[in-house]
Amino acid sequence: MGRIICAGLGPGDPDLISVRADRAIRSARQIAYFRKKGRPGQARRIVEGMLPPGVAEHPMEYPVTTEIPFDSPEYNRLLSAFYDEWTARLAALAAQDDIVVLCEGDPLFYGSFMHLQTRLAPIATVEVIPGIPGMTGCWNAIGTPMTWGDDAMTVLMGTLPEHELARHMRAADAIVVMKTGRNLPKIARALALADRLDDAWLVERGTMPNQRMMPLAGADLAACPYFATVLVHGRGRRPASEAAE
Amino acid sequence: MGRIICAGLGPGDPDLISVRADRAIRSARQIAYFRKKGRPGQARRIVEGMLPPGVAEHPMEYPVTTEIPFDSPEYNRLLSAFYDEWTARLAALAAQDDIVVLCEGDPLFYGSFMHLQTRLAPIATVEVIPGIPGMTGCWNAIGTPMTWGDDAMTVLMGTLPEHELARHMRAADAIVVMKTGRNLPKIARALALADRLDDAWLVERGTMPNQRMMPLAGADLAACPYFATVLVHGRGRRPASEAAE
Ligand SMILES: C[S@@+](CC[C@H](N)C(=O)[O-])C[C@H]1O[C@@H](n2cnc3c(N)ncnc32)[C@H](O)[C@@H]1O
Ligand SMILES: C[S@@+](CC[C@H](N)C(=O)[O-])C[C@H]1O[C@@H](n2cnc3c(N)ncnc32)[C@H](O)[C@@H]1O
Repeated sequence: MGRIICAGLGPGDPDLISVRADRAIRSARQIAYFRKKGRPGQARRIVEGMLPPGVAEHPMEYPVTTEIPFDSPEYNRLLSAFYDEWTARLAALAAQDDIVVLCEGDPLFYGSFMHLQTRLAPIATVEVIPGIPGMTGCWNAIGTPMTWGDDAMTVLMGTLPEHELARHMRAADAIVVMKTGRNLPKIARALALADRLDDAWLVERGTMPNQRMMPLAGADLAACPYFATVLVHGRGRRPASEAAE
Repeated sequence: MGRIICAGLGPGDPDLISVRADRAIRSARQIAYFRKKGRPGQARRIVEGMLPPGVAEHPMEYPVTTEIPFDSPEYNRLLSAFYDEWTARLAALAAQDDIVVLCEGDPLFYGSFMHLQTRLAPIATVEVIPGIPGMTGCWNAIGTPMTWGDDAMTVLMGTLPEHELARHMRAADAIVVMKTGRNLPKIARALALADRLDDAWLVERGTMPNQRMMPLAGADLAACPYFATVLVHGRGRRPASEAAE
């Protein structure tokens, strides 16, 4: 009886994969990864050159629909059926051999794998190897401290409504916004409402070969890729004498 | 001219160090790390067995005071002088050779290294290797998804006043509280005020050999080690049909 091993890949640079995940990937006989139909998939791209010869690959292709909106209950039923199907297929594969599922960043942090994990846990042996979250790669790309002293940091999804984003942003010292893409104009408006737009950075494909970063105020809000994160650094809530440094 | 390379060590398990940091540590000729006087130091303990023979070790021992409170301006002046001194010593060492500074978790996320980095950056070549943050190790220790869908996650320091903690906790879906230790009773009171105490976990020394975890409501609040983190999992803000799974 094999295991289903979900390997966190970190932000994108293969050198930032953990020693344990690196070992699992380089000795895998079976790998699976999510991708959009017809695309190579980011997770697969990160491990390019690391896979042993003869590995069997199982791309898990998200269902495509041209007619149903992505946020409709109908699309969610499709997605649920897709996760059910892959649960059955991975469990069947794991009956023979270990299988390594590749996941960007850390798998338990806003990852798609959790939809499989909740289904697989009762019927198979599932192991998760942590990874460096994408946001951590992004603030390391900029290279200055993200949080200091008593800073409160809030992580938000760009899919939230504008007023909710702004409310959270007002309360936080340091801010991370993921799932940017076509939500970027809304995110910028919320940051302006919270008076933090001028402190915000946009990091595209952090730690990947085509990494880009720029102040959000100067960015083209209409052309944001999926792997992009907005960061506002902490203000360094700290003891009075240090603040004076 | 050498570099000052700050290697993020991740949460504690040496197998969770990144491939790049692992390589830097295993080939180091000079290493430096923070510790309390008379203690081995957590960072040094994580790399035990990894260091090459003949490596020169530079423990950076925090100033000890028995009379001055840790939150006084006077202690902060002592700390500032300590960082100044090590800035000069590391810069002098780096004039001859690369030096690897060990840092728990991710160095730019509430790390002490940033006090050296801001001082060293103008006078030396500083490189930072990201690490898996301690909190990520902690939620992987529990093993269930930390955040789902549109959850907002807030990271707080236990040193904040109780009413500020409670205010942030009320606004968040998922909550992380670091710097627990003797702040744990206050953190538990703030969680109770925000009506989240019954959902909270305490993870002590996540991914380390003596890891422990328990519901916070059942924990001994008076005996909390330094490497302990409080977690409240996200509620999974997500599309209606999925919530029904
Ligand atoms: C579904 S979440 C998955 C998060 C992942 N499990 C993690 O730990 O980072 C995808 C979002 O993460 C962010 N992201 C992940 N990696 C990134 C990178 N290398 N650069 C910029 N953003 C990234 C983007 O905002 C993207 O929309
Ligand atoms: C000064 S902060 C340093 C954070 C570090 N740079 C990181 O990325 O995790 C120290 C706090 O991190 C938390 N922490 C770090 N590693 C931990 C672990 N393995 N288990 C539990 N808590 C941890 C504790 O709350 C501790 O008080």
